[in-house]
Amino acid sequence: MGRLRDLFAPESVAVVGATDREGAVGHAILENLVADYVGDIIPVNPNRESVLGLECYPDVASAPPVDLSVIVVPPSIVLEAIRESAKAGVENVVVITAGFSETGSDGAARERELRELADEYDLNLVGPNSLGIMNTRSGMNATFGPENALDGSVSFMSQSGAFITAVLDWANEQGIGFRDVVSLGNKSVLDETDFVEEWGSDPETDVIIGYLEGIDRGDQFVEVAREVSDDTPIVLVKSGRTDAGAQAASSHTGAIAGSEVAYETGLEQAGVLRARSVQELFDWARALSGLPTPDTDGVAVVTNAGGPGVLTTDAVGDANLGMANFTDETIDRLAETMPDEANVYNPIDVIGDADIERFETALDIALEDPNVGSAVVVSAPTAVLEYDRLAEVVIEQRDAHDKPIVTSLMGGSRSRAAEEVLREFGIPNYFDPARAVSGLDALARYRDIKTAQRDEPERFDVDRERAREILETARSRTGNRLGVEAMDLLEAYGIPTPRGEIVSDPEAAQDVAADIDGDVVLKIVSPDISHKSDIGGVRVGVSDEDVYDAYEDVVSNARNYQPDASIVGVQVQEMLDLEGSTETIIGVNRDPQFGPLLLFGLGGIFVEILEDTSVRVAPIGEDEAQAMVEDIKAAPLLRGARGREPADIESVVESIQRLSQLVTDFPSILELDVNPLVVGPEGVQAIDLRLTVDTEKL
Amino acid sequence: MGRLRDLFAPESVAVVGATDREGAVGHAILENLVADYVGDIIPVNPNRESVLGLECYPDVASAPPVDLSVIVVPPSIVLEAIRESAKAGVENVVVITAGFSETGSDGAARERELRELADEYDLNLVGPNSLGIMNTRSGMNATFGPENALDGSVSFMSQSGAFITAVLDWANEQGIGFRDVVSLGNKSVLDETDFVEEWGSDPETDVIIGYLEGIDRGDQFVEVAREVSDDTPIVLVKSGRTDAGAQAASSHTGAIAGSEVAYETGLEQAGVLRARSVQELFDWARALSGLPTPDTDGVAVVTNAGGPGVLTTDAVGDANLGMANFTDETIDRLAETMPDEANVYNPIDVIGDADIERFETALDIALEDPNVGSAVVVSAPTAVLEYDRLAEVVIEQRDAHDKPIVTSLMGGSRSRAAEEVLREFGIPNYFDPARAVSGLDALARYRDIKTAQRDEPERFDVDRERAREILETARSRTGNRLGVEAMDLLEAYGIPTPRGEIVSDPEAAQDVAADIDGDVVLKIVSPDISHKSDIGGVRVGVSDEDVYDAYEDVVSNARNYQPDASIVGVQVQEMLDLEGSTETIIGVNRDPQFGPLLLFGLGGIFVEILEDTSVRVAPIGEDEAQAMVEDIKAAPLLRGARGREPADIESVVESIQRLSQLVTDFPSILELDVNPLVVGPEGVQAIDLRLTVDTEKL
Repeated sequence: MGRLRDLFAPESVAVVGATDREGAVGHAILENLVADYVGDIIPVNPNRESVLGLECYPDVASAPPVDLSVIVVPPSIVLEAIRESAKAGVENVVVITAGFSETGSDGAARERELRELADEYDLNLVGPNSLGIMNTRSGMNATFGPENALDGSVSFMSQSGAFITAVLDWANEQGIGFRDVVSLGNKSVLDETDFVEEWGSDPETDVIIGYLEGIDRGDQFVEVAREVSDDTPIVLVKSGRTDAGAQAASSHTGAIAGSEVAYETGLEQAGVLRARSVQELFDWARALSGLPTPDTDGVAVVTNAGGPGVLTTDAVGDANLGMANFTDETIDRLAETMPDEANVYNPIDVIGDADIERFETALDIALEDPNVGSAVVVSAPTAVLEYDRLAEVVIEQRDAHDKPIVTSLMGGSRSRAAEEVLREFGIPNYFDPARAVSGLDALARYRDIKTAQRDEPERFDVDRERAREILETARSRTGNRLGVEAMDLLEAYGIPTPRGEIVSDPEAAQDVAADIDGDVVLKIVSPDISHKSDIGGVRVGVSDEDVYDAYEDVVSNARNYQPDASIVGVQVQEMLDLEGSTETIIGVNRDPQFGPLLLFGLGGIFVEILEDTSVRVAPIGEDEAQAMVEDIKAAPLLRGARGREPADIESVVESIQRLSQLVTDFPSILELDVNPLVVGPEGVQAIDLRLTVDTEKL
Repeated sequence: MGRLRDLFAPESVAVVGATDREGAVGHAILENLVADYVGDIIPVNPNRESVLGLECYPDVASAPPVDLSVIVVPPSIVLEAIRESAKAGVENVVVITAGFSETGSDGAARERELRELADEYDLNLVGPNSLGIMNTRSGMNATFGPENALDGSVSFMSQSGAFITAVLDWANEQGIGFRDVVSLGNKSVLDETDFVEEWGSDPETDVIIGYLEGIDRGDQFVEVAREVSDDTPIVLVKSGRTDAGAQAASSHTGAIAGSEVAYETGLEQAGVLRARSVQELFDWARALSGLPTPDTDGVAVVTNAGGPGVLTTDAVGDANLGMANFTDETIDRLAETMPDEANVYNPIDVIGDADIERFETALDIALEDPNVGSAVVVSAPTAVLEYDRLAEVVIEQRDAHDKPIVTSLMGGSRSRAAEEVLREFGIPNYFDPARAVSGLDALARYRDIKTAQRDEPERFDVDRERAREILETARSRTGNRLGVEAMDLLEAYGIPTPRGEIVSDPEAAQDVAADIDGDVVLKIVSPDISHKSDIGGVRVGVSDEDVYDAYEDVVSNARNYQPDASIVGVQVQEMLDLEGSTETIIGVNRDPQFGPLLLFGLGGIFVEILEDTSVRVAPIGEDEAQAMVEDIKAAPLLRGARGREPADIESVVESIQRLSQLVTDFPSILELDVNPLVVGPEGVQAIDLRLTVDTEKL
C-alpha cells in the first residue's frame, strides 16, 4: 500500500474553516462529508460552537485525533492553519483555498512558503487551489463541488476541478464508478507522479485515469508510470496537444508547457494510453476496468446485419487489430449450424431472422477459435431478437471463454434495457460500433504494454573522464556553443570519427596531413560561423602539397566573411570515400520536463523538408534504438532499397545508444547534433558535430 | 422538383402481396402504412377480400388509381407483379422481395430481367431487396422495419436496411428527424446518384446523408454531387474503407468494390463530406441541418472552466479551424465587463462563479467581433449557473448574430433539460467538447465546398486525330502494352518530349543522330522488356561515330536477355542536360467506377518508398492540377528549397492538365505512366512513357 492511502482513507477528517453560511466553500465541503462519510467529521472554526449540528473546535490541537485536514480558510491564514495541523500530528492536508501561484508574484511567494512548510513536516499535501478529494469506499466526499461518485475501481486525478464536477455528474448518469478522485490544484507538493505511484500499489484501483495540462517531473513520471503500467493501465488526457491548446493551457495554469513531442514520446515510453478526447478517455477506461485483455489481436465480429458488420470491420481495420482468420474447424461448425444464407466467414452474418440461440451458437463457436482474441457483437433491432436476452448471452459467453466482448446493440429505446444489463457486468454498449472497437483496441494496446520486455539501456564501456575533460576544455576555449573541436567527445563514447586534428598554423596542418593516407579535408573551426561551406570555410580533396595554401585560404575566407569571428583553428580531417553511403542525423534536445530527447533521421531533405524523423526520451536500450531507425519512412533506403548495398544499421543503432548514454551522463549537454553521421555497408563515421552546453552545470 | 418526388409523395400506395398473417412482410408494411399515412392505402392480393379492414383488390388494374406499388410477393412472381403495375400506369415501384443478384446466378438473371422491365416502362424502381421507403410529411412508412421517423429536413439513403432500422430507433430517442428515407437494396435501377439528384432539387431537404458500400456510377455521381453540394450538404459513410472492410462489403453486397483511393478522391472532388463513423455522420448532419455556416474560420470559446476550455482549444486545433484573434476593441470590452480573474483572451474564461448574465455578455461581445465566425460554449455545472437558462441565451445569441454556436454544457442529469431546449432549436449538445467542435468543422468545410469556384477543365488545342492514329498504329504493332514508340502521343497533346525517332537499322540510327546536335541516347523498344537499363538496353552519351556500334549493342543485349522478345526497334533520342532538374512522375490508372485517376509525385524513392503522391479523378482544371503539385510533401524541392533553382512548376501543372485531357478523350487508355517527366527551371520534358490500352475500345 502506498504512503498516500491515509489521504484517501482517513478515519477522521477536519474541515478547517467549516461554516454554516450557505454558499461558502467551508459549508459545501462539510455538507458533502456529512452525506455519506463513514469516519469522524470534525469542524474547526474558532468562531463557532457547532456547525451543521456537529461539535466545532477552535483549532485542530484541541480536537479529537485528525487523520486529514481540509483547509478552506482565507489565503492569508492558510500557512498558519497548515502549521497548526502539522504540529497537532496531522500528516495529510488538502488545501482548497485559492490565491497562490495562479494569481501572480505574491501568491507565488506564498506557495513557496507552503511548499517549505510541507517539506518541514513531511506532509502529504494536495493543492492549493484544489476542489478536494474523494474516496467512494468510505463515502468521503471532501470536495466543495459535485455530489458523491458511484463506487468503482477507476481512480481519477484532474488538474481541472471543473472537469471533475462535469465528469462526476455525467458518470453518475452513465453508471461509471470511481475508487479515488483527486483535484490536483496547483500541485505544489503532491503531483501526478505521486498519485500514479499510489494507485499502482492500490489493489482496489483497476484503472488510473487523469486529465493533465502539464507533467512537472517528466523523467520521474516516465520511470514510475513504466513500473505501474505493468499491472495497472493508465489512461491520460494531456491537453495542450495543439499549439493553440498549449497556449491556452499555459495561460490557464501559469505553467510553462513542455514541448508536445516530448509529451507524446514520454507518455508512450511510460506505457500510458494517451486519449485525445474526453470520449476516448472514458471509452477506454470502461473497457479496461470491465474486460480481460485479449491474448491475440484477431477479432471475431458477429452480427445480424450486413451493413453494420462492414462498419465494424472498417473500425477493426482502423485499429491496431485484425479480423481473425477462422480455422477450418470453426468454419465447418458455423456452416453446419447456420442457415445457408448466413456468412460463416468473418464478419459472421447470422442474418436478419436470427434469434438468440443462433447468436449464441455463432458467438460460442467463434470464441472457441484459437485465432480469436476478442469479439464484437453488433446488431440491428428485429422482431425476433430480444436485446436483453442477447445481453445475457454476451455476458455468459464472456465468462465461459474469458475473452473480451464488446457490443454495439444498435438502437434507441429498444436497446436501453440491454444496455443496463451489460453495463452492470462491465461491458459498455455503444450505438456506434467504432466506439466499441476503440475499447477493444485499448485492451490490446494495454496487453502489449504489459507484456513488453523491459528494454534496459546498455552501459557501454566509455571514457567518461575524458569526455568531461573535453567538455571543459572546449568550453573554456569557445563558450557554450561547441563544434568539431569537441569531436573527441564522440570518440570517448565510442562513436567513430574520421582521423584528424585541429591545428592553428599551416605548418601543423601539413604535419597532420602527412600522417593521413590520401587527400584531406580542411574546415574552419569557429563558434561564430555555422554554415562553413557557404562562406568558403571548407576545402575537400586537398592533397599534401596543397595543404598550406588551403589552410591560408579557409582562414582568410572566414576573416573576410566575419572579421570579428573567434577562430579556434582549422580542422584537418581524413577524406572519407562516401560512395554508397547515406547521411543520417542524430540529434539531442533537452526538454525541461522529460530530459534529453533523441532524434534520428536521414540527412538533407529527409529531415528538413519531409520531416521524416523519430524521437525518443533518453536513456533508451537497444530495442528502442532499433525502433527509432525502423520508424522513419525512409528506413528501406538503409536496408538497401533500389539496388543499394544495405547499410550497417547495427552501427547506427549502437551509435544512438552511445549518444543516449553520453547525454544521460552529462546533463550539461543541452543540444547536440551529429550531422551527418555517415553510414555505409562497413559502419558509421561522425563527420560533423555541434553542441550547446549549460555552462552553469559543468 | 426532381422526377422522383412522386415516389416519396404518392397520393395512393398499393401493397402488392398484402396479408393479414402476423410476421409476414406484407402484413408489417401495411401496418406501418396504416399507422400514419395520409394517402390511400390499397392492399392487393387475389386471395383476400380485405386486409386489416381495408378493401383488398385482386390486382392493381382493378384497384383505384395507384401512384406507388410496393411489391412483397415471392421472387418467382415479382416480375409479373411489376409488369401488371406498370401496365396499369403505375410509375413508381418499390421491390421489397429479396432473392435476386445477392443470391447467385439464378437471382442475377432475374434481376437483369427486372432491369429490362423497368427500362421498358421507364419505372422509378427501388430495390429489389429493399426495406422500403419513408416520407415523414405524408406519414408514409412503406417499410417492414422500423417505426415511423420523426419529421425533419434530413434525407437519408442506405445500402443496408438493417442500418435504417437501427438508426431510426436511435434517432427517435435522440430527437433527430428525417424528410425522406430510402433503403436502396440492390440498386438495380435507382441508385445513390438518382437520390442525390432528387434531394438536391427538393427544397425541403436541408441535408443529404447516406450509408453506402459502393457507388455504381462513380463518374456520374461526382458530376451530380458536385452540382448538388453547392446548395445542399451531402454527408456519407462509404464503408469498406479498410482492406478488411472492403472484403466484408464485397461479400455483403456481391459487388466489386472500387479502389479506396478512388472513393476517397472522388468523394472529395464531388464536394461530399465523408464521415468515418456513424457518430460523425450524425454529428455532422445535426450541425449542418440546424446551423448557418460560419463566414470565417475563427472560433471563439466561452467557458466557465479552464480545463474544458483547453480541451476545446485542442479540438479547434485538430480541426480545420483556428482560435479567433480578438480585436483590441473586443478585448477592451471584455476587460471592462469581466472580473479581474477572468481570461479575456480566447478561450474566454468567465470563471467558475459566472452567472447567466456574464456568459451572455461575453458571448455577445465575442460574436460581435468580425474575426469570430462561430462560437463554442463550454461549461461545467456550478451552483450559480442555470443550464436551461444558459441554453436560452445560446439560442438568442445565435439568432442575434446569425453565427453558428455549438455547446458542450458538460454534465449528466444537470444538463438534460438544457439539452432538450437546445435540440429543439437545432443546436446539438455534447458532453465531449471535441464532438461539438467536429460539428463546427463540418460547417466550415461545407462553406468551403459551397463557395469554391468551379474549376472547369481547360480544353487545350491538341491534335486529337493524330493521337488516335498513334494509338491505333502503335497497337497494331505491339499489342495492348505500349512504350516509347507512343511518345508522339504526348507531343500530339502538347507535352514536350526530347527530339528523336525509333529506327530499325543502324544506318537509320546514324541518320537520326546526325540531325541531332550533340550526343544521343539509344534505347531498345520492346513491349516485352520493361527494365531496359538493367539488361543493357540503354546507352547514354553516344557520339555520332559510336551510334552504329551502340545500335548493334543494345539489340544484341536484348536478344541475349530474351531471345523471343518482340523488338519494335531502337529509339535514338536527344541527350538532355539534366543538371539542376528534378524527375517527376505523372501516372493514370482507370478506376472501374470513377474513371481515370491521375497521380503525381517526384520520381524514384519519393513515389516508391515514401509514397509521397497526390491523386485526382480526371478531368481536372488548373486549380486542381496546381493543388496536386502543392499537395506532395516534397513540393518545396520544386519551389527551390536548399539553394536549388526553382523548377518551372507552371509547365508541370499544364502537363498534368494536358494528360487529364488525353485520358478523358481516350477511354481506351487504361494505364499510363510518364516516368520521368523531367522538370527544370526552363520547362518539362517527358523522357519515358508506358501505357496499357483496352484493345476492345479502340
